[in-house]
Amino acid sequence: MAYAARALHTKAIIVMPGNAPAIKLEATAALGAEIVKVGPSSQERQLKAEELAARHGYAIVPPYNDEKIIAGQGTMGLEILEQLPQVEVVLVPVGGGGMISGTAAAIKLTNPAVKVIGVEPALAADAQASFRSGKLVQLTAEEVTRTVADGLRTQSIGELNFEHVRAFVDDIITVTEDEIRMAMVQLANNPKTVAEPSGAVAVAGFLSRAQELPQARIYAAVLSGGNIEPTMLSELRSR
Amino acid sequence: MAYAARALHTKAIIVMPGNAPAIKLEATAALGAEIVKVGPSSQERQLKAEELAARHGYAIVPPYNDEKIIAGQGTMGLEILEQLPQVEVVLVPVGGGGMISGTAAAIKLTNPAVKVIGVEPALAADAQASFRSGKLVQLTAEEVTRTVADGLRTQSIGELNFEHVRAFVDDIITVTEDEIRMAMVQLANNPKTVAEPSGAVAVAGFLSRAQELPQARIYAAVLSGGNIEPTMLSELRSR
Repeated sequence: MAYAARALHTKAIIVMPGNAPAIKLEATAALGAEIVKVGPSSQERQLKAEELAARHGYAIVPPYNDEKIIAGQGTMGLEILEQLPQVEVVLVPVGGGGMISGTAAAIKLTNPAVKVIGVEPALAADAQASFRSGKLVQLTAEEVTRTVADGLRTQSIGELNFEHVRAFVDDIITVTEDEIRMAMVQLANNPKTVAEPSGAVAVAGFLSRAQELPQARIYAAVLSGGNIEPTMLSELRSR
Repeated sequence: MAYAARALHTKAIIVMPGNAPAIKLEATAALGAEIVKVGPSSQERQLKAEELAARHGYAIVPPYNDEKIIAGQGTMGLEILEQLPQVEVVLVPVGGGGMISGTAAAIKLTNPAVKVIGVEPALAADAQASFRSGKLVQLTAEEVTRTVADGLRTQSIGELNFEHVRAFVDDIITVTEDEIRMAMVQLANNPKTVAEPSGAVAVAGFLSRAQELPQARIYAAVLSGGNIEPTMLSELRSR
């Protein structure tokens, strides 16, 4: 958001949870955005954004429960199919559900034979619970804050996202905190890539949960997010 | 070497300095190679390899002072020109001189207008001294061991490499240890890439020594090597 606003020479005000990692707050500020910190609950963020928009006439850019956001994320699915046409299974991290909604819709509407699997931290498994029960499950902010994957600490996926998940996603699996950390170490060792916990979740699903995935020859895992705290990577790697 | 030997189902014995980073020793062993540790001097490695080859009939694969090694590294120059035909300046790390010999030869023989600049740690600047004085300068093992860039701790470039450098390289610049560390941090933050000190040297030259480089619109820096000790990255990033 901050990057896009700067590129368009416009102003971005980002409503963020105050417990977001310092590196994300700093990177956002460094790109010229103004940050408004609120508590950890999704609802609080939404209310603050609506209040600011009403007072100043700002346009709200919602994080995931929005048709345009979902359509924008859909380009990721198109890129995967373009770059790896033989792909059989695509693993996508699930937080609010925007990324998987767009990616899954783009993939299934292009090639329904490709399986799309969501991956979520077991400590913030609201989407899996919703997917399995058929109705939107909401966790508390305290519950989802337990996972190290700060980008996936949404308490529930959006309603629009839930419709997309039900229509286009084949399954949602979960990974443990240790599995997320192991995936980060593996990514740093080879292919030498810095991933944040939320970004490594789908890779963790591939590395540690093979038995829960459809059998295939070619898998793709979406790796999205590399803002990690200075000390985190070495802590992981010295384990 | 270890990777290639495994791919070819043959055996590799690697003569390495015992003070090489543990992660390199481990990664080499994990790929199935046998490691023979010797002291830090280049001459000692050479003598040990010759002794093993004489005793067991092994073929020696020299690290840099060899026509075939140089030709092999030349593919890097061809790839740069293929992927970035508009490039004007190419920065290459210099250790024993194999990589820059091949890369510079390939580039200059294809497009002489492209400038090729070697980059070396100031604490192991034998190649710059040789380039400037016109005769091969040799440092001691103790001198070159001072740099954190363990992959560039060769005491002098090879004779064949010196000929290539004189024929095809435009300049050799040096970077400080702090500049190497800053480049590693920058690479980890964005583009989220884990680089070892030796791998980050050319990027350090680009980031910190702009005033010593030919003015250009498009630079390429070779980033080669990402085996870093678990604690190193976080130590750097917390500075």
